[in-house]
Amino acid sequence: MSGFSAAPMGWNSYDYYDTSVTEADVRANAACMAERLRPCGWEYVVVDIQWYAHRPNAQRERYQYLPFGELAMDEYGRLLPDPERFPSSAGGAGFTPLADDIHSLGLKFGIHIMRGVPRLAAHRRLPVRGTSVSADEIADPASICRWNPDMYGVRNCPAGQAYYDSLLELYAGWGVDYIKCDDICNTDNASPFYEGAYGARHEVEMLARAIQNCGRPIALSLSPGPALLSEAWHYAKYANLWRITDDLWDDWRLVKAMFRRCELWQEHVAPGSWPDCDMLPLGRIGKGFGDERDTRLTRDEQRTMMTLWCVFGSPLMVGAELTKLDGWTLSLLTNRRVLALLDAARRRTQIRRDDHEAVWLSERRDGGDPHAALFNLDDAAREIAVPLSELGLPSTPATAEELWSGRRVLCGDGVLTATLPPHGCALFHVEPHT
Amino acid sequence: MSGFSAAPMGWNSYDYYDTSVTEADVRANAACMAERLRPCGWEYVVVDIQWYAHRPNAQRERYQYLPFGELAMDEYGRLLPDPERFPSSAGGAGFTPLADDIHSLGLKFGIHIMRGVPRLAAHRRLPVRGTSVSADEIADPASICRWNPDMYGVRNCPAGQAYYDSLLELYAGWGVDYIKCDDICNTDNASPFYEGAYGARHEVEMLARAIQNCGRPIALSLSPGPALLSEAWHYAKYANLWRITDDLWDDWRLVKAMFRRCELWQEHVAPGSWPDCDMLPLGRIGKGFGDERDTRLTRDEQRTMMTLWCVFGSPLMVGAELTKLDGWTLSLLTNRRVLALLDAARRRTQIRRDDHEAVWLSERRDGGDPHAALFNLDDAAREIAVPLSELGLPSTPATAEELWSGRRVLCGDGVLTATLPPHGCALFHVEPHT
Amino acid sequence: MSGFSAAPMGWNSYDYYDTSVTEADVRANAACMAERLRPCGWEYVVVDIQWYAHRPNAQRERYQYLPFGELAMDEYGRLLPDPERFPSSAGGAGFTPLADDIHSLGLKFGIHIMRGVPRLAAHRRLPVRGTSVSADEIADPASICRWNPDMYGVRNCPAGQAYYDSLLELYAGWGVDYIKCDDICNTDNASPFYEGAYGARHEVEMLARAIQNCGRPIALSLSPGPALLSEAWHYAKYANLWRITDDLWDDWRLVKAMFRRCELWQEHVAPGSWPDCDMLPLGRIGKGFGDERDTRLTRDEQRTMMTLWCVFGSPLMVGAELTKLDGWTLSLLTNRRVLALLDAARRRTQIRRDDHEAVWLSERRDGGDPHAALFNLDDAAREIAVPLSELGLPSTPATAEELWSGRRVLCGDGVLTATLPPHGCALFHVEPHT
Amino acid sequence: MSGFSAAPMGWNSYDYYDTSVTEADVRANAACMAERLRPCGWEYVVVDIQWYAHRPNAQRERYQYLPFGELAMDEYGRLLPDPERFPSSAGGAGFTPLADDIHSLGLKFGIHIMRGVPRLAAHRRLPVRGTSVSADEIADPASICRWNPDMYGVRNCPAGQAYYDSLLELYAGWGVDYIKCDDICNTDNASPFYEGAYGARHEVEMLARAIQNCGRPIALSLSPGPALLSEAWHYAKYANLWRITDDLWDDWRLVKAMFRRCELWQEHVAPGSWPDCDMLPLGRIGKGFGDERDTRLTRDEQRTMMTLWCVFGSPLMVGAELTKLDGWTLSLLTNRRVLALLDAARRRTQIRRDDHEAVWLSERRDGGDPHAALFNLDDAAREIAVPLSELGLPSTPATAEELWSGRRVLCGDGVLTATLPPHGCALFHVEPHT
Repeated sequence: MSGFSAAPMGWNSYDYYDTSVTEADVRANAACMAERLRPCGWEYVVVDIQWYAHRPNAQRERYQYLPFGELAMDEYGRLLPDPERFPSSAGGAGFTPLADDIHSLGLKFGIHIMRGVPRLAAHRRLPVRGTSVSADEIADPASICRWNPDMYGVRNCPAGQAYYDSLLELYAGWGVDYIKCDDICNTDNASPFYEGAYGARHEVEMLARAIQNCGRPIALSLSPGPALLSEAWHYAKYANLWRITDDLWDDWRLVKAMFRRCELWQEHVAPGSWPDCDMLPLGRIGKGFGDERDTRLTRDEQRTMMTLWCVFGSPLMVGAELTKLDGWTLSLLTNRRVLALLDAARRRTQIRRDDHEAVWLSERRDGGDPHAALFNLDDAAREIAVPLSELGLPSTPATAEELWSGRRVLCGDGVLTATLPPHGCALFHVEPHT
Repeated sequence: MSGFSAAPMGWNSYDYYDTSVTEADVRANAACMAERLRPCGWEYVVVDIQWYAHRPNAQRERYQYLPFGELAMDEYGRLLPDPERFPSSAGGAGFTPLADDIHSLGLKFGIHIMRGVPRLAAHRRLPVRGTSVSADEIADPASICRWNPDMYGVRNCPAGQAYYDSLLELYAGWGVDYIKCDDICNTDNASPFYEGAYGARHEVEMLARAIQNCGRPIALSLSPGPALLSEAWHYAKYANLWRITDDLWDDWRLVKAMFRRCELWQEHVAPGSWPDCDMLPLGRIGKGFGDERDTRLTRDEQRTMMTLWCVFGSPLMVGAELTKLDGWTLSLLTNRRVLALLDAARRRTQIRRDDHEAVWLSERRDGGDPHAALFNLDDAAREIAVPLSELGLPSTPATAEELWSGRRVLCGDGVLTATLPPHGCALFHVEPHT
Repeated sequence: MSGFSAAPMGWNSYDYYDTSVTEADVRANAACMAERLRPCGWEYVVVDIQWYAHRPNAQRERYQYLPFGELAMDEYGRLLPDPERFPSSAGGAGFTPLADDIHSLGLKFGIHIMRGVPRLAAHRRLPVRGTSVSADEIADPASICRWNPDMYGVRNCPAGQAYYDSLLELYAGWGVDYIKCDDICNTDNASPFYEGAYGARHEVEMLARAIQNCGRPIALSLSPGPALLSEAWHYAKYANLWRITDDLWDDWRLVKAMFRRCELWQEHVAPGSWPDCDMLPLGRIGKGFGDERDTRLTRDEQRTMMTLWCVFGSPLMVGAELTKLDGWTLSLLTNRRVLALLDAARRRTQIRRDDHEAVWLSERRDGGDPHAALFNLDDAAREIAVPLSELGLPSTPATAEELWSGRRVLCGDGVLTATLPPHGCALFHVEPHT
Repeated sequence: MSGFSAAPMGWNSYDYYDTSVTEADVRANAACMAERLRPCGWEYVVVDIQWYAHRPNAQRERYQYLPFGELAMDEYGRLLPDPERFPSSAGGAGFTPLADDIHSLGLKFGIHIMRGVPRLAAHRRLPVRGTSVSADEIADPASICRWNPDMYGVRNCPAGQAYYDSLLELYAGWGVDYIKCDDICNTDNASPFYEGAYGARHEVEMLARAIQNCGRPIALSLSPGPALLSEAWHYAKYANLWRITDDLWDDWRLVKAMFRRCELWQEHVAPGSWPDCDMLPLGRIGKGFGDERDTRLTRDEQRTMMTLWCVFGSPLMVGAELTKLDGWTLSLLTNRRVLALLDAARRRTQIRRDDHEAVWLSERRDGGDPHAALFNLDDAAREIAVPLSELGLPSTPATAEELWSGRRVLCGDGVLTATLPPHGCALFHVEPHT
């Protein structure tokens, strides 16, 4: 789907809160974002999974998602914010008050949903709003999520579309700007090459139509990854973001693996179409998982992650608790010259990749403004040399400025060279001498 | 599990009735069996799938198993016979009256069950009898059947065992002699070589323990197939029958494919342990499927099927509507010398098999009483010659009697020879001249 | 690899001659091409498989590629044209005389090779030119082609590179402009998603380096397909063409399947980088296969094939015997306005595809000059309607000219509509009214 | 194939010598066996892989099997012992002198072969003895071994049979008693469930026919494993031994994994039909691999291995260098009461197995003489208790004698109990009190 020119940037509640986030938490993070990050382009505030569940972490040591737990739901089988955790939603207000306040900060509001209709709505045969059918008639009892017990998939039929239309009517009324739909992009959650894992493709189409029908521009993000490379055309046609990886956490092996995924998807970044490298597990994370901590990535690894996400053109959703944001992390998130690489008008190309190093080129589609990112994927320091000719530049003398450090280097012999620490990177703006 | 010396023989309601069978139908078939088949060893009367469902075929053109339909269930989440279809079960009697009457005919009574606990019991949080836990605590919301919407799998825990114990207490009280449990033998229902398809193995063990605990001898039959060859030891230890094929119907290709399956499982036939070739789609079948018909197998194919099942040692469950049994079909089911091959004390060996023909030997474990079955798997008539030495017999003159026709042939040169019609067979009792 | 701006167009000997092509055949086809097709951009003359084999079709009814047949080879284990079939190659001239004459017609000359070093060279331990090692040291005895018996794969080592360098030195000396290397793009030859099938990736890199080292611009084409979508970056970096399909023949099912393949690869068409839909089995084909015939595709199917290849941007290699080219086929190959869609500066986008129809848009990268291709994939006539808004055009009145028929239609209501015969297509140049 | 009543026991050169074994080595080991092991039933002396290769370990650090190395071969493409390593074979004597001397010690002589015909014989077009065809006509150039470069598979045709007949004529003339054929049982060498890995099944049949045709009783052993469970019938019909595992080495994880394999194959042990657990890596091993050592298995693990092999009924081939046999290892190999369990007349049953422990029962087919093997698979000491009823014995008092230690225990309460060290076992002869 088109209509969104810049890769979305924002905050997501999952990495810090898991299912436990409350309205107060969301407001506090939104306030921090408005004050400290918004000037650099960060704007989405996204409430992640199970905002409709009552005390979802009651048995957190046994279940991430409590089976057969209590869910807030209206008479049409549409899930509502849990009023205990989101008090302003009481009395049928839903997310409207919270979204209004977020909008008033100059920000946008997003929510997470699970594909489908609540199992309870089907077993209780609740009516589908605006139709004469009930939820049991649109729910497919064999279409379940492997890891979350809340929903049944919706059948591909007009009443199913009506159900999704009723959802989007509700969400648009609340003022939702962004929907992250889960259990839909890869329902097998294993391989980017297993075609059977896109069995819910019709629900993607229904969601896209419901968004169009609702009249409000809402970005559609598909999870979990890895997205299926063979479905690239379908994702781009019906959605805006699609996760190209399973959940990313603060583990170097996962960051390193993203280089392969970015290689696979590099041709598919376009305005309104973003392969998504997942949230940035930076700063303070893990509380809801019973493991509150500072990110386990080293500073070099963090910078490598930010550089790859930007040079590739991924959406940026930070997972850090923003009320605890430290100066270092803030500096990572607010380097305007690095963030400028997200510009949808740019073209990105992997120049080289093996198990030891990677090099990317970012340039304007007309060929100007070349930036080169050099990555050391090894566990030891490493010198990386890139002939300018490999970047499509003349082999004449040039100067290059490293955007994180501000350091300038000369490429006198037509070769750009940097010595990088383990898992480190350098991001150069190359200026050919004319 | 041991304790049953003869391969079970009986009638099953599925092939003719699908989900629509009623008490009157069962009684009528039981009466026919008692009168016409019992003298030859037929004794089980098995009520197949969804006897607990209210008008399960109400939308038969759309669903074989109506999603979110109405099920009869007691306060402990145990399914009960639908009182409209099984009137004698009303008032809490369950299957007791029907089982009693079947027993009084000298027959045994069997029921079909789906693995697990009713989804409704979990969503309603019904108590598990004899425990302080409720069904939602033992139900695994990710463990569902791919093709039937009624149940959730039971977790591997003491309360789960208590649930199965409560089921068997109920069934033993009714007088059940045979349980065919579905969605348990191969939950993937595709390949005999995919190990992941036996994820419900703990439920097999729970069922076996519950049967032991209930104090009544009950045969345990596992479906659907194809059973996993790699789990042969587990099936044999915990169950009595296991289906080695997906549903068999009246189609020659399926009968022919059974020769490969029998080759795979021939070493695993033993007293109390029967690889199961599935029901015999003979006579009048298909009514509940909206396709009432005489079996589409030719007479030669029917005889080939009966001969293979007997020489291999499979359980025999006839699918025909017994009230409409014709003379030909009756003759197939009552050839005592053929049925005698089911004797658990015999050993069976495939001598030869390719795409065109197959030969089996059946003999007593001490080596005596040799029978040879010759099968023409081709679409044209074919002469099949078997040197007696291949049957482990001396290459001396012998006489052989064909058990279907009574015809006697001489093997003067130590070779048993028969010319068989397409898809036809001959079953010889070989008598070496002494 | 870059350096080639237009998608290659030419003739290939395989579809008509199989392994039997001779120098006289090649010359005759080149002459026809020069006279009739060159003005429209056709320029490559490619000699396909086993030009080095002596009477390779001697046992054609048993083997397409005669095992352990006699091959022409020099003292360095480099295959040479069979002098009986290519007389001008005698005395060490190789393909030079033939290439020279083809060049003099204003055409380019291409050859097919199998990945690797001849098995015979390894078993005879022939020296690798310019090194002190012999072929047995660079040949990997476990790396064979599944369907052709001639070669062993080359190990990834400097002496292996030296062997490929010696090959390209020879080919460049002959004047080769195009190399189609087989058994390299997908050595499993089954699925576009099986990563293991690109085990010869190091040989692609060696070939690319050898081409760079030889100093002559030579286009590199990889076969067989289906190419692996996951290796798109690698193909684009090291080769110019890669087959996205297994062999295409004159069978509608294969043409229809190409729509899925073009969907998969549409983002990967770029100057010097062409996903390849395989040769066009048009006109007179099949003689070497013992089945000489006119193409079995209907005229509508032929036009659909040409239109898809052009709108997608595939290389075009015609398989027809050019000396027998009929007027209809010639008209298919010489429609300049259709062929103009191959321009590397254009962008192509699949707008829609299901089992019944497909729609593609071709436009200049700056958004101008829109062409829309409408395809009826059904077996019955079908009306296809495309709102201009789906093509990214204003929903205002427009005129559209169909490029095969010259017919003009009005899109008064902002919808482009065509009624198409079974398997037929229409290719419109859309001119919005300004 | 039948005709061999006792599971073969012997010595194999591989574990100590790899490809480097010489005639002197074989003679020395044969002498040791005759003196120390033969009284307990050990009788086969088997020369393993590449006895036909000249200095096969010349580049051992790079290749286990030297590609394109020099092989001794007669004019009919039949491989001969390398005369440098096997001097008595010179002048056309082949293995006759060595076999004669081994026979004179009261032992039997076995050789290893690779499936197929030498590649060199095909490329040189050597004649097939007794026919008018040459090796290139029977060799399939696409049928190679994944890990050894010597051979091409033989096509399924009369001339192919003639080649195998000529091989067996030669071997029978030498006095060969046992053939271990490699690259034939599982050519994929990965999974026991992948059916495609038995593509050389026709060569098994050809070998079996050639053995029958040669007139000498020769045991046929198929490698490598894991054998395919789905081909059990075929192995049993055409061969005597088949490896149920990939190469076993002195690593506990491999020994532990064998418990699963024995579970799979337990129904398939019969006279003349032995699923084969592979050689026993006991004593001194590894020299030819550049890693000469005492076995890395602990004494408990060694005893567990011996006990499992015997209670399961596997062939026993010891890999130790017999000239360096220590007293402990000798005691493992000469416990007559343990070895007696190999008796083909016994029946073995796995009673229980999980990740922590296993229990097996061995008894005569008539039910007498019960032995129970208790295995601790855990890394900590463990008490294992087995109710006698689980062994099919009455729950009355019994005495049990442990066969390795001679220790006697009472089962007063009808339970057999042992406390076992990590990876340890106990093997009891149970004597019910009458």
